[in-house]
Amino acid sequence: MPTDPARLTADLVRCPSVTPEEGGALVLLQSLLEPAGFSCTRVDRNGTPNLFARWGARGAARSFGFNGHTDVVPVGDEAAWTHPPFSAHEENGWLYGRGATDMKSGVAAFAAAAIDFVAKTPPDGAILLTITGDEEGPGRDGTLALLDWMQAHGERMDICIVGEPTSVETIGDMVKIGRRGSMTARFTVTGKQGHSAYLHKALNPMPAVAFLAHRLSTHSLDDGTDHFDPSTISVTTIDTGNAASNVIPARTRMTVNIRFNDRHSGASLTDWLRAEAEAVAEATGTTIQMESQISGEAFVTPPGPLSDLVRRAIGQETNQSPTLSTTGGTSDARFVRDHCPVVEFGLVGHRMHEVDERVWVQDIQDLKRIYTRLLTEYFALPR
Amino acid sequence: MPTDPARLTADLVRCPSVTPEEGGALVLLQSLLEPAGFSCTRVDRNGTPNLFARWGARGAARSFGFNGHTDVVPVGDEAAWTHPPFSAHEENGWLYGRGATDMKSGVAAFAAAAIDFVAKTPPDGAILLTITGDEEGPGRDGTLALLDWMQAHGERMDICIVGEPTSVETIGDMVKIGRRGSMTARFTVTGKQGHSAYLHKALNPMPAVAFLAHRLSTHSLDDGTDHFDPSTISVTTIDTGNAASNVIPARTRMTVNIRFNDRHSGASLTDWLRAEAEAVAEATGTTIQMESQISGEAFVTPPGPLSDLVRRAIGQETNQSPTLSTTGGTSDARFVRDHCPVVEFGLVGHRMHEVDERVWVQDIQDLKRIYTRLLTEYFALPR
Ligand SMILES: [Zn+2]
Ligand SMILES: [Zn+2]
Repeated sequence: MPTDPARLTADLVRCPSVTPEEGGALVLLQSLLEPAGFSCTRVDRNGTPNLFARWGARGAARSFGFNGHTDVVPVGDEAAWTHPPFSAHEENGWLYGRGATDMKSGVAAFAAAAIDFVAKTPPDGAILLTITGDEEGPGRDGTLALLDWMQAHGERMDICIVGEPTSVETIGDMVKIGRRGSMTARFTVTGKQGHSAYLHKALNPMPAVAFLAHRLSTHSLDDGTDHFDPSTISVTTIDTGNAASNVIPARTRMTVNIRFNDRHSGASLTDWLRAEAEAVAEATGTTIQMESQISGEAFVTPPGPLSDLVRRAIGQETNQSPTLSTTGGTSDARFVRDHCPVVEFGLVGHRMHEVDERVWVQDIQDLKRIYTRLLTEYFALPR
Repeated sequence: MPTDPARLTADLVRCPSVTPEEGGALVLLQSLLEPAGFSCTRVDRNGTPNLFARWGARGAARSFGFNGHTDVVPVGDEAAWTHPPFSAHEENGWLYGRGATDMKSGVAAFAAAAIDFVAKTPPDGAILLTITGDEEGPGRDGTLALLDWMQAHGERMDICIVGEPTSVETIGDMVKIGRRGSMTARFTVTGKQGHSAYLHKALNPMPAVAFLAHRLSTHSLDDGTDHFDPSTISVTTIDTGNAASNVIPARTRMTVNIRFNDRHSGASLTDWLRAEAEAVAEATGTTIQMESQISGEAFVTPPGPLSDLVRRAIGQETNQSPTLSTTGGTSDARFVRDHCPVVEFGLVGHRMHEVDERVWVQDIQDLKRIYTRLLTEYFALPR
């Protein structure tokens, strides 16, 4: 009897696996994979739960990898949900719940595809599933821990599909071949506190932060590249906390987020931001401190054998010709890309991270078919 | 025996009259003024304590007014004070305590001067003392309440000296003949919340607030006027409260304080700010709401008989020739000026509103002498 990915999705949704809680999700997957012949290892690190599963021999001639996560973001205002967020309520063809689309359905689809594929047509190679319980959180001990452990234990994927929801309107309309980089810079602008009636005794940091925010907001980093949209700069917050309108504050803080393409690196942007801050500090007499945090560098798996394989499988199952895109936020593909060529493909992201997150049940079945086709095509490639 | 203004200052400092607490300060003054022949009335309004005292007949041919306040700002970090803030500790010629300079010493000096003056040389006229317990707070029921009550009861000052600390380095070096106006505008800039990886679905209010803050901060309202410094614009706070660097906030808030001279009015500046906000809203597609609050209009008692009188008295007692200034923050003179010509003159403002506020005891004696000389000169003027 084939494994039903929709039922597995519902079972996973009922596991309250809000980061960093395992919530029973990985345990459930392991209980299905082991009887199917997958050797499973929990690769927990610093309390973060992760599951590694391999069918076939370690060091097989070729190995196909899947990556995904079972953790979910918090439910937010639970009272605002039409159905309880962990109830996996089904109605009119939709399955509701936190994680329904991001991405318990993706994990269910590739696990079901892998289990049935090895039972029906055992391939000459290995299939590896790398599933983390921390993609939505800090992510330091999630997919990174799996990849570290694999390296230490001689485990290797030759290619990897990350099952994040990448489709936009219809399943199969978009595949992600890379991601923009993301970095955050936090500025502290310091002047000298005083009374707004005696400005000569004070040094207001607000004109400096306004000038810097204005300069950054109106700056164009580039016009886009072959595979990427233009980079973007967003001032996301300025906070001062000065309740007294007759007081000049000593200090104010600003956060800037940059989504950047392959024209830039976290380091080059850090240098540029630092120079901008220094120019404004010099022009205004203030002191500006900056801390930057690079969440991920821009990367791309250029169109080639892997994206061709994915396009072909999608085309065969859906008659769609997916766009190869690098849009959107970051994902664990930014870690996997250091291990092997990686492409992301999955469902339509209905209400991801929102109230009433839901998935179209038929799409889960279609996704399993596409993943199965991918496995078939991959292992049918000439060696 | 003459009334000692330093001792009276110390007694007043020991009254913990933090706005809106009366703290015993007005009761103490009334207990001294009544035996000296002043008819006293407590003109409390909405719980705010105020004291009106008159020597001489209501409707006298001429009447000299003093105005001051006995309330004080909070002590702040009490542990940081060298001596307890209500102990009136004296050391090396200094008297320490909250209100020592702003302005229990000023009230003590004019009360002592008036009491001794009427005893020694009863004038052909009246002396009015208007003392409020709310100058440091909202001020709606302080000096305004006294002036309203006076109008309703046929009480009138022909001129008024506000005893705020106006001296800068040495007592007598500065007199205030007016004050700049002050207004505060609060802006709310609204865009559309979103994810910083999907900017096309969001509208970030931060570039708009930065643009507006930058425009206002770099704008020059004027170059000053005959009696006034240039007007100033201070952005005092911007607050967004967006902790997530991957989220574009829906809304941000900014406060702007303007200190303006007689080239402007609260209404003209409100119009101008509204036009600036509209221009930025239109350029950015955001919505910008604005609320403005006018604390006081600019006003000046142009150099003339009253300032001449004050300068002459100061010159005779200290050999100083005071600057006639309009600098600094607002004071209750902004209310009094609607009632009669008003000039402010008092001590050096050592550590006003700060920890270890203190007054040079000899200055209190000098201030009493100057106020006495003012009374003498005023009532000696030809009728
Ligand atoms: Zn996800
Ligand atoms: Zn004062």
